[in-house]
Amino acid sequence: MIRLQSSRHRLMGILACQNTSRRAKLVTTHRYSSVLSTIFPKHEEFSKRHIGPSKEQQQKMLERLGVKSLDELMDKTIPADIRLSKDLDLEESVCENEILGRLHQLAKQNRCEWRSYIGMGYYNCSVPPTIVRNMLENPGWSTPYTPYQPEMAQGRLESLLNYQTMVVDMTGLDIANASLLDEATAAAEAVSLCFRHNKRIKFYVDEKINPQALEVVRTRAALIGVEIFVEKIERMDFSCRDFSGVLIQYPNTEGKVFDFGDLIEQAHTHGSLVACSTDLLALALIKSPGELGCDVALGSSQRFGVPLNYGGPHAAFFAVKNELKRLMPGRVVGVTRDSHGKKVYRLALQTREQHIRRAKATSNICTAQALLANMSAMFAVYHGAEGIRHLANRVHNAALLLAEGVRQAGHYLVHSDFFDTVMIHLTSGIHDIYRRSGEKMINLRIYNDGKIGVALDETVTEKDLDDLLYVFGCEKTSAELAEEIGGKLDGKLSESAFRRRTDFLTHPVFERYRTETNLVRYMKRLENKDVSLVHSMMPLGSCTMKLNATSQMEPISWREFANIHPYVPIDQARGYQLLIKELERDLCEITGYDSICFQPNSGAQGEFTGLAAIRAYLKSRGEHQRTVCLIPTSAHGTNPASAQMCGMRVVPVKVDASGSIDMDNLRTLAHKYSDNLAAIMLTYPSTNGVFEDGIQETCDLIHRLGGQVYVDGANMNAQVGLCRPGDYGSDVSHLNLHKTFCIPHGGGGPGMGPIGVKKHLVPFLPTHPVVPPPESMMSNAKPLGVVSAAPWGSACILPISWAYVKMMGAQGLMEASKIAILNANYMAQRLKDHYKVVYTGQNGLNAHEFIIDARNFKATANIEAADIAKRLQDYGFHAPTMSWPVTNTLMLEPTESEDMEELDRYCDSLIAIRKEIQDIEDGKFDKEVNPLKMAPHTLQSISADEWSRPYSRTQAAYPLPHVQPDIKIWPTVGRIDDVYGDQNLVCTCPPMDSYVDDEQ
Amino acid sequence: MIRLQSSRHRLMGILACQNTSRRAKLVTTHRYSSVLSTIFPKHEEFSKRHIGPSKEQQQKMLERLGVKSLDELMDKTIPADIRLSKDLDLEESVCENEILGRLHQLAKQNRCEWRSYIGMGYYNCSVPPTIVRNMLENPGWSTPYTPYQPEMAQGRLESLLNYQTMVVDMTGLDIANASLLDEATAAAEAVSLCFRHNKRIKFYVDEKINPQALEVVRTRAALIGVEIFVEKIERMDFSCRDFSGVLIQYPNTEGKVFDFGDLIEQAHTHGSLVACSTDLLALALIKSPGELGCDVALGSSQRFGVPLNYGGPHAAFFAVKNELKRLMPGRVVGVTRDSHGKKVYRLALQTREQHIRRAKATSNICTAQALLANMSAMFAVYHGAEGIRHLANRVHNAALLLAEGVRQAGHYLVHSDFFDTVMIHLTSGIHDIYRRSGEKMINLRIYNDGKIGVALDETVTEKDLDDLLYVFGCEKTSAELAEEIGGKLDGKLSESAFRRRTDFLTHPVFERYRTETNLVRYMKRLENKDVSLVHSMMPLGSCTMKLNATSQMEPISWREFANIHPYVPIDQARGYQLLIKELERDLCEITGYDSICFQPNSGAQGEFTGLAAIRAYLKSRGEHQRTVCLIPTSAHGTNPASAQMCGMRVVPVKVDASGSIDMDNLRTLAHKYSDNLAAIMLTYPSTNGVFEDGIQETCDLIHRLGGQVYVDGANMNAQVGLCRPGDYGSDVSHLNLHKTFCIPHGGGGPGMGPIGVKKHLVPFLPTHPVVPPPESMMSNAKPLGVVSAAPWGSACILPISWAYVKMMGAQGLMEASKIAILNANYMAQRLKDHYKVVYTGQNGLNAHEFIIDARNFKATANIEAADIAKRLQDYGFHAPTMSWPVTNTLMLEPTESEDMEELDRYCDSLIAIRKEIQDIEDGKFDKEVNPLKMAPHTLQSISADEWSRPYSRTQAAYPLPHVQPDIKIWPTVGRIDDVYGDQNLVCTCPPMDSYVDDEQ
Repeated sequence: MIRLQSSRHRLMGILACQNTSRRAKLVTTHRYSSVLSTIFPKHEEFSKRHIGPSKEQQQKMLERLGVKSLDELMDKTIPADIRLSKDLDLEESVCENEILGRLHQLAKQNRCEWRSYIGMGYYNCSVPPTIVRNMLENPGWSTPYTPYQPEMAQGRLESLLNYQTMVVDMTGLDIANASLLDEATAAAEAVSLCFRHNKRIKFYVDEKINPQALEVVRTRAALIGVEIFVEKIERMDFSCRDFSGVLIQYPNTEGKVFDFGDLIEQAHTHGSLVACSTDLLALALIKSPGELGCDVALGSSQRFGVPLNYGGPHAAFFAVKNELKRLMPGRVVGVTRDSHGKKVYRLALQTREQHIRRAKATSNICTAQALLANMSAMFAVYHGAEGIRHLANRVHNAALLLAEGVRQAGHYLVHSDFFDTVMIHLTSGIHDIYRRSGEKMINLRIYNDGKIGVALDETVTEKDLDDLLYVFGCEKTSAELAEEIGGKLDGKLSESAFRRRTDFLTHPVFERYRTETNLVRYMKRLENKDVSLVHSMMPLGSCTMKLNATSQMEPISWREFANIHPYVPIDQARGYQLLIKELERDLCEITGYDSICFQPNSGAQGEFTGLAAIRAYLKSRGEHQRTVCLIPTSAHGTNPASAQMCGMRVVPVKVDASGSIDMDNLRTLAHKYSDNLAAIMLTYPSTNGVFEDGIQETCDLIHRLGGQVYVDGANMNAQVGLCRPGDYGSDVSHLNLHKTFCIPHGGGGPGMGPIGVKKHLVPFLPTHPVVPPPESMMSNAKPLGVVSAAPWGSACILPISWAYVKMMGAQGLMEASKIAILNANYMAQRLKDHYKVVYTGQNGLNAHEFIIDARNFKATANIEAADIAKRLQDYGFHAPTMSWPVTNTLMLEPTESEDMEELDRYCDSLIAIRKEIQDIEDGKFDKEVNPLKMAPHTLQSISADEWSRPYSRTQAAYPLPHVQPDIKIWPTVGRIDDVYGDQNLVCTCPPMDSYVDDEQ
Repeated sequence: MIRLQSSRHRLMGILACQNTSRRAKLVTTHRYSSVLSTIFPKHEEFSKRHIGPSKEQQQKMLERLGVKSLDELMDKTIPADIRLSKDLDLEESVCENEILGRLHQLAKQNRCEWRSYIGMGYYNCSVPPTIVRNMLENPGWSTPYTPYQPEMAQGRLESLLNYQTMVVDMTGLDIANASLLDEATAAAEAVSLCFRHNKRIKFYVDEKINPQALEVVRTRAALIGVEIFVEKIERMDFSCRDFSGVLIQYPNTEGKVFDFGDLIEQAHTHGSLVACSTDLLALALIKSPGELGCDVALGSSQRFGVPLNYGGPHAAFFAVKNELKRLMPGRVVGVTRDSHGKKVYRLALQTREQHIRRAKATSNICTAQALLANMSAMFAVYHGAEGIRHLANRVHNAALLLAEGVRQAGHYLVHSDFFDTVMIHLTSGIHDIYRRSGEKMINLRIYNDGKIGVALDETVTEKDLDDLLYVFGCEKTSAELAEEIGGKLDGKLSESAFRRRTDFLTHPVFERYRTETNLVRYMKRLENKDVSLVHSMMPLGSCTMKLNATSQMEPISWREFANIHPYVPIDQARGYQLLIKELERDLCEITGYDSICFQPNSGAQGEFTGLAAIRAYLKSRGEHQRTVCLIPTSAHGTNPASAQMCGMRVVPVKVDASGSIDMDNLRTLAHKYSDNLAAIMLTYPSTNGVFEDGIQETCDLIHRLGGQVYVDGANMNAQVGLCRPGDYGSDVSHLNLHKTFCIPHGGGGPGMGPIGVKKHLVPFLPTHPVVPPPESMMSNAKPLGVVSAAPWGSACILPISWAYVKMMGAQGLMEASKIAILNANYMAQRLKDHYKVVYTGQNGLNAHEFIIDARNFKATANIEAADIAKRLQDYGFHAPTMSWPVTNTLMLEPTESEDMEELDRYCDSLIAIRKEIQDIEDGKFDKEVNPLKMAPHTLQSISADEWSRPYSRTQAAYPLPHVQPDIKIWPTVGRIDDVYGDQNLVCTCPPMDSYVDDEQ
């Protein structure tokens, strides 16, 4: 069903293969002789830096729990029948000071000296160094969590609002979200949106869109039953009113800029929507999709300030007309007011999302690409309209010069209207062009019929142009061409019918920070509004906010990893390939699976891919009818949303009073649906923070009835080195590399969600139309399709997880899991006299996270979990996960990286808050005006001249000795008014004068 | 007089020369054809990012000044007779996005893959990545100023106190300073200290100290008339009581650890002091100088967490017995209390320093190496005693293994007691060893007599050891050697008489931050206490706090620049050499000088070197008697202090009422001292912020009388592209690369103070005993001696200035100077109705800085400049330069990087403060309890329950609309009590329980 396009899209660089084809060898660390290792020991273990509690602290914590050792704690916590009985077979741990040497050796094998003019949605970009250093490389920006607590996240919310404003400006549409995963999945989301809009099951796709987007659309559409018709634009016919919409690309994949007014009119006349995949830089010169009448615009914002990254991470943008906003997928930042009436930012329209709507959500998206969207937004802030126009004109003129040279050399241009990408019909020998492009180390796009594509970008220099002219056999230099006919070429598009006449980036934010001094201060000001791991612990249940070590982060901004186009010949990315292979081997060993697929670039994407693999497997056995997916009600909202995306029918399984799956209910349902049973989706240990008994029994039951088992990898951090999903019966899991494997949360992304599968599912793993991964080339391959734009997802952040595993080694990883469990149980132990711990497992112990109850306080003190969460901000802390998986509770996951002192400060704070609740219960505080209901307390309110509260400023702001004014991280705004924001939706930067009322 | 030692200290790596000796070519940027440059323009000019005010803002500012154009302003400001009449002949400016490519090309030519075991005070070091990223690469740490305003500098003051505590602990002495420039100058400072202590003019130096330290000591001693006797320890005789002291090195330059108890006893018996150059890591295992009875300990702290950097920057440490503390050179951080009685930090013992004592100061030191000292301190915090001991034992055992292998290979060890450095007497052919070391890419130290030195370091791996064993012809691997005799070797020093038995790093700060999570939070907490350029403008008169662009800063942490030992064969540092050569050419063009010497690693060092060159030049003409140095009373304190260090007699020249040099007084003095006149030291434009008329006339006068002219380069930022010292008559200047040329101030260093000289002074420029620079190899060279430990000073920060010049180009640099002058005049214009501008030049205009008066306010309102400075903190701003060059005034230098909005905010703040003073004058405020006298207001006081001030909290903390709670940078402590601190001097971390009283 999926047509592999690898043969159609070959790429240049064949000569390079010969140079690097000798199998590059990796240095492996030495095994020390025992005497040598005594007198000349290795450098210290990195695990000592990663794991928070010292040995002395661990001992104290164990004592408090009444156990003698970590091993005893493990024995009491984890069911014996699933315990891993061996050490993980991983390479000996590598010291932190040697890991960068290893990474440099890998990096050298990525040939970043080759220039890529391949295009297809990926363009070289000059990332302003100050944005790299002060944002990408700055843990203040990379380590915050998704901005669910907006009072401590105004910095990045403002930046994401800048992003949305930029997208709205460039695309000419009404509302944009705060980023999606990549252009191809954004295209698939557009198809879903159209389908949701008018329920028609046919959909047109222009044949001239990027091949990876086409294949992702095909894969995703097939699973929800939408029929894709790939067609030439001029042959599309909407008159039967059975097409939900059409997706075109503008400029198209061949670089052509064209008029599609007729198409829009036709489509609209017959009730179909028009979605347009587009290019932000081109839109500086040509009419925007919004002006042309499109309903949806989408694409990659990579070329706005994000490196190629061998495919990712980048932010994709997605914008719609106002009337479609509630159908839009993904995070949206909106403006609202706080308790002081001040204009503030927060996540808006959350009722569309999976964590609330579950299977009925607009998408399964959980992670966005916040960090990358912020980089793109800051790129627009840095350049402003003037700078963006300059870049666009420059690259357009470069393309015109190149085209002229190519023409003079006797070749033909396939399209006469283009922005930065030309398609060339060669008249002389392709082999000379191969040779010369190899000689100049230039990658071009080669179409199947021998035509050649050249996509220029803003980094192009005169020398680059001259080299390209040489490659195509033009005897003139760009300077000579310019002298000859320059004036005539200048800004051709701007004299065409396509010329953009509307302004963009007109908000003052795109003018005020154009010097580096101002930009640095702006970025710092935003950074300092947000709480992140550089300030204090963030025990977000199910999200595993652990140390993101600098040595893991370093390689991602090295040229050798950053400046590689995803579609270069594989020999130019040997470093990546070796790294991915090693990481795959290690993750297989850690999970007990047989193969890992790195294409899914988020956890939710992993879920979707895993379920799609199950469906493909079942279909290959003729069991098309198996579409029921059992999902416990305690599951993460992504689970049902992903199942829905795979065309599955979600059947919820009850959870019993102890928080475990209600086994009777499960058995009943499993048997009831046994003929149609496709899969069960489980989380282990459970989302309630418990190592449930009987996981093996559950897996066996499902298998007996012909279903497959999907274990959600969100809680891998409690399992690494202790038990393996692949051992106890799971067939497939995704791994949240941004949870367990140290990729930072980025303030709401990027994430990476590779899936591990057992052998029988390997043939069904995704392929890729341009660079098919090895598994999908096997003779028995029956790929489920394509799930991401890039073959290895967000490849550039894989070195983080690779380095983590290498530096920790088997012992370190296992110890991390043990300490994660110790830390959680220690906190639960300290808190249980003050809050009810909702669920515990055997021996009254928890896994690596636990839930405390706030449900009774509503009656006794008018207090809800949200009040406790906001009040924690006054203690300098980010709240735990709120009201999930149980409404009106808090779920805490401290991770192994926090030491006992920090755990104690957090526990002390929660205990102090409980005493404040007690004071309300006892009538000492009013039920409306008390430190919890009025929380969080901003600096502004604490330092105001007037203070009319019935409690003191000190009690409000410094309720415990550890909360000191000179080190406290403050909420910068008062409590958010969500209702107001929903009623007055604003999702772009408000005009400056609208702030006037707020000023002091 | 100076014995060149280059022939004695050759270094390996000769084979490498042949490979790289083809003259490496630099890519030069293209000159665009005019048509091409129109339709395909270069990327935007970096100067747009560097220069603050937009064109529109410039126009507004010019209008306010009543001039039509920048050129008119220049014509009115700068005397016509010295204006440069041509454009600077510099390479066309390079775009920011191409500069890193250029730097990568240079970097590649530094062969960092060679391993250096040369030692001599420089050792490879594993710098914890988190310290590199969160401190060195973090503008929050790199861009603050010297902590003269301690209320906004508690972060780095705490860190520097950690540094002092670490030095005191390791050396066993009583008090340490917050760093000196390098080991060699620290050694020279020790000689000066001894001389100041007992005024004896003879001084012993052990012949076994590092050659560069010996030569710097010789150079410096000769100029102050101290006679150096280089002698074997056992032959030193103090009985004539005419030696002020003795300097030894322990372990010595050959690696030997030895007992010098007798020497100390001898010296002390006869009233001589004992100074000991030592190694911090060795001191983890061997008795400290303090325990042995030394009076002074010094050395480099480079191997504690700072890369080799091709010689610098690194911090040198300096510690003394308590009774010598007032003779100690350099910055010292001390503990005192603030206005709330809280324990706080500040610079102590400032009365020793040049900015107060001028020619009578303990040294001319102004810049320290704060950023590097902070890195070293954080290295100690990261490792703690346990980690430091681990590193020391590891490297010691590695040296023992190597020694055993060398012995088994048939060679002899010259010394049996050593820490990490062995000296080897070879028995078989040196040429084999040359060949094998070349083959393995290993640099060793080769003594003149063919002996070989190997200095190991903490980065050594098993493979490194095996390679070294191979080089020396040992047939066994380190593992085999260990198996054979390992147990016997283990920790040999620890069983010797030298064994250290005392604890170190016992303060809790060296235990609490050993996980990366905790360390990152600690560094962030300290960073956020300090104001820096990432927050707001810092218009420090004479200090030029301008943008330090990320693209300039990036290369300094690249391996190719960071991991190069200063004494590698020159062919391994070709990238550095090319860069230095290009920078020299550019700086010559900018200044009008004929040659630049990069050895001086601070501005004050540059002054000293320039004056020493003048003295050497005069002596070469037989004019030994010329020792008088004329210095205006308005000069920077370093000027007289440097002249004193050169053995010159300082004669002050008066300044007239207009702030200019009193020409009559100058003429009188010049003629009076004409026979003995050596030089005049001038600052231009003057330290009073004025382009004085008659600078040429002054130069001519001095020259006519046989003297030389030294123009202090502190104010080059007003001159670049507009006038040149080399044109208007100066013979020599130092350039503060950390002012005009964008090296960040680092919170108090590093700086770089190369000197430019006219042709006649070139032969006298410094040489170096190990790697003599090209000038000092010329046939007519008569080097003045050696001034720094490393041949090119702090070479690693030169890429910053190189990149600045390349990116700005001639036009950009000139524009920067013009805008610097515009910004200053705009501020002066805005302020002059509120404050008296003390001095102006022709047409009532200033140069790039100006002074406002606070002298009258004492009488009218009991207010001094310090009160205004402290009050500015409440407005979120760092104070200008205070009480210099005129007591009770403020000097503002905005630089070109600040835009009009920021200038306005600063002016608004000063004007608002003036109104507050008016309110005191008018009796509306009490003369003691008012917002100025009580300033700064901490967050703690503003948010306290009690508020009993006669003004509101809002007036105290948010006096203007731009001072907003969510973005304000707060002083973290109340006003410092300097008197208390001086009376209760504490210069190490106070015990934790001493803070209890301070807690809220």
